[in-house]
Amino acid sequence: MADVARRAGVSMATASRALANHPHVAAATRARVLAAAEALSYVVSPEASRLAGGATDRVGVVVPHISRWFFAAMLDGLESVLRDADLDVLLYHVGDATDRHNFFRRLPARRKVDALVVLGMPVDDPERERLELMGVHIVAAGGQIERYPCVSIDDLAAGRQAVDHLVFLGHRRIGMIATLDPAQPDWPATPGRGRAYHAALTDAGIPIDPALTVTVPWGGVNGADAMSRLLSLREPPTAVYAHSDEVAFGAVRTLRRAGLRIPEDISVVGIDDHPLAELADLTTVAQPVRRQGELAGRMVLSLLSGEATGDGITVPTRLVIRGSTAPPSRG
Amino acid sequence: MADVARRAGVSMATASRALANHPHVAAATRARVLAAAEALSYVVSPEASRLAGGATDRVGVVVPHISRWFFAAMLDGLESVLRDADLDVLLYHVGDATDRHNFFRRLPARRKVDALVVLGMPVDDPERERLELMGVHIVAAGGQIERYPCVSIDDLAAGRQAVDHLVFLGHRRIGMIATLDPAQPDWPATPGRGRAYHAALTDAGIPIDPALTVTVPWGGVNGADAMSRLLSLREPPTAVYAHSDEVAFGAVRTLRRAGLRIPEDISVVGIDDHPLAELADLTTVAQPVRRQGELAGRMVLSLLSGEATGDGITVPTRLVIRGSTAPPSRG
Repeated sequence: MADVARRAGVSMATASRALANHPHVAAATRARVLAAAEALSYVVSPEASRLAGGATDRVGVVVPHISRWFFAAMLDGLESVLRDADLDVLLYHVGDATDRHNFFRRLPARRKVDALVVLGMPVDDPERERLELMGVHIVAAGGQIERYPCVSIDDLAAGRQAVDHLVFLGHRRIGMIATLDPAQPDWPATPGRGRAYHAALTDAGIPIDPALTVTVPWGGVNGADAMSRLLSLREPPTAVYAHSDEVAFGAVRTLRRAGLRIPEDISVVGIDDHPLAELADLTTVAQPVRRQGELAGRMVLSLLSGEATGDGITVPTRLVIRGSTAPPSRG
Repeated sequence: MADVARRAGVSMATASRALANHPHVAAATRARVLAAAEALSYVVSPEASRLAGGATDRVGVVVPHISRWFFAAMLDGLESVLRDADLDVLLYHVGDATDRHNFFRRLPARRKVDALVVLGMPVDDPERERLELMGVHIVAAGGQIERYPCVSIDDLAAGRQAVDHLVFLGHRRIGMIATLDPAQPDWPATPGRGRAYHAALTDAGIPIDPALTVTVPWGGVNGADAMSRLLSLREPPTAVYAHSDEVAFGAVRTLRRAGLRIPEDISVVGIDDHPLAELADLTTVAQPVRRQGELAGRMVLSLLSGEATGDGITVPTRLVIRGSTAPPSRG
């Protein structure tokens, strides 16, 4: 440290404050100290230098799934914003009920992060109390959590875009493949997407046939099974609305195996605009996933700098018409 | 702390050591102290308690892409093993050349992690020197880095499984869609997969036609473009070997648009066994991606506990035959 201070032409105290990212050090001085430290390959312990201030310069991200595209893309956007602000990202995968229990029981006993971002999962009341014990900022993204600022799409509006499109094309017998998260079976992942189906049909004067709704755990193979169930009806639907593109890919596989043509025999629409939806020529409702992660990151930065954030940001979705939807051939 | 010690019936010093995860505290004592701390919602600062020991209990993970399935799945496996060992994961996304430069220039100046895992990207000599300044353990996964213990598949063997399968079926005019990582254009992502093609054809006595190899940046849409180029040849291939499933999905899209039947008119084989490969009925060479992440995590644990690890672990791949490959119809 003495070498760093001497090389930068400042006192030991100033050098120490500069390396600790203390706010009362002029930018030019800080740059000089950092350059000196770098030249000397000085290894500073953030633990030591930041004990006084209390800031960890880390943000925790809690996700229920890492390897699914939706969560990974959101994490990508979030990490980019936090990294640009010199904050480190601590990743916590909270998969099943046991994971959740352990996570929420233990996290508050440690002061590891300045803020926590909860991605695409619900938080119940006891868990919320544990979080609040931590005394850190909390932001939600990809799903609403009451009382925390949140970035998400409007699932009801997204679902309406998908189902209204099928209704507009003239479909009256419309199936729905709804999804549950197997790790969180009590929490319908996207209740708004189901309500949208009922509202769109009711607005169009189409009676609801419960046999046309199949609910399965999220996943492509489950989407394929759900489509088989819809095809086992005496009168199958002429169009299918899937709650996510990956589930729609499964439905498409079943339709192909059954020798049915898309969209001549049956239309399929999804939600997400997964990177492979374009290749699959799937009509879908696009949501900006990476962007939601970026906005959640900005919200964290605002909270850490003491600025107010609103209750939340709803990002718009839009219908992307590709080759998997068309008017019913036997209208 | 005094309250915690009193409740646990131990001295302040013992309580402090127990909360700091000090090795010389009996497990039963530690459990009692943790229970007391939990009952009292005591917030311990790991920074304060671990300054002496120097361990951060954090592992850094450096990835070139977060939202691609391969990297996210590997991160998933890695995180699960590290979390079970009570280690936190710091995520660093190092995308383009500027990111890399910043990361390797700045990381060594901070002592933030006990080990670093480099996922699926190369590290050049100056970068390696910077890493070694940190004095932390380094593990590579999903790609070889000389001098560090590594977990990966054998790309040459995987490529042989794919191309030998096409040769066995009777194909002699075999195209290859090779990929480059646009963020690392100088580094062929998987050179072994290209060598496998040449070796397999040579072993089968099939002359190499350079027009049958197309190299594109990784990605489905680029795979579709590459397939168009192969179809623009006066004599297109009867089978195509793609370096990854996502690229193969693009090739399949182009073939469908051209009205060609798979596998009757042209066979397609990929590498990876992407979760959607089964739905796409794609023949592929499966690699255990999540498992590679887990093994890298175990390697980190061994290194941190002072055990020896070998130079590396090569995980096996296997051919998965689905509906996209068959003998050529005009053999």
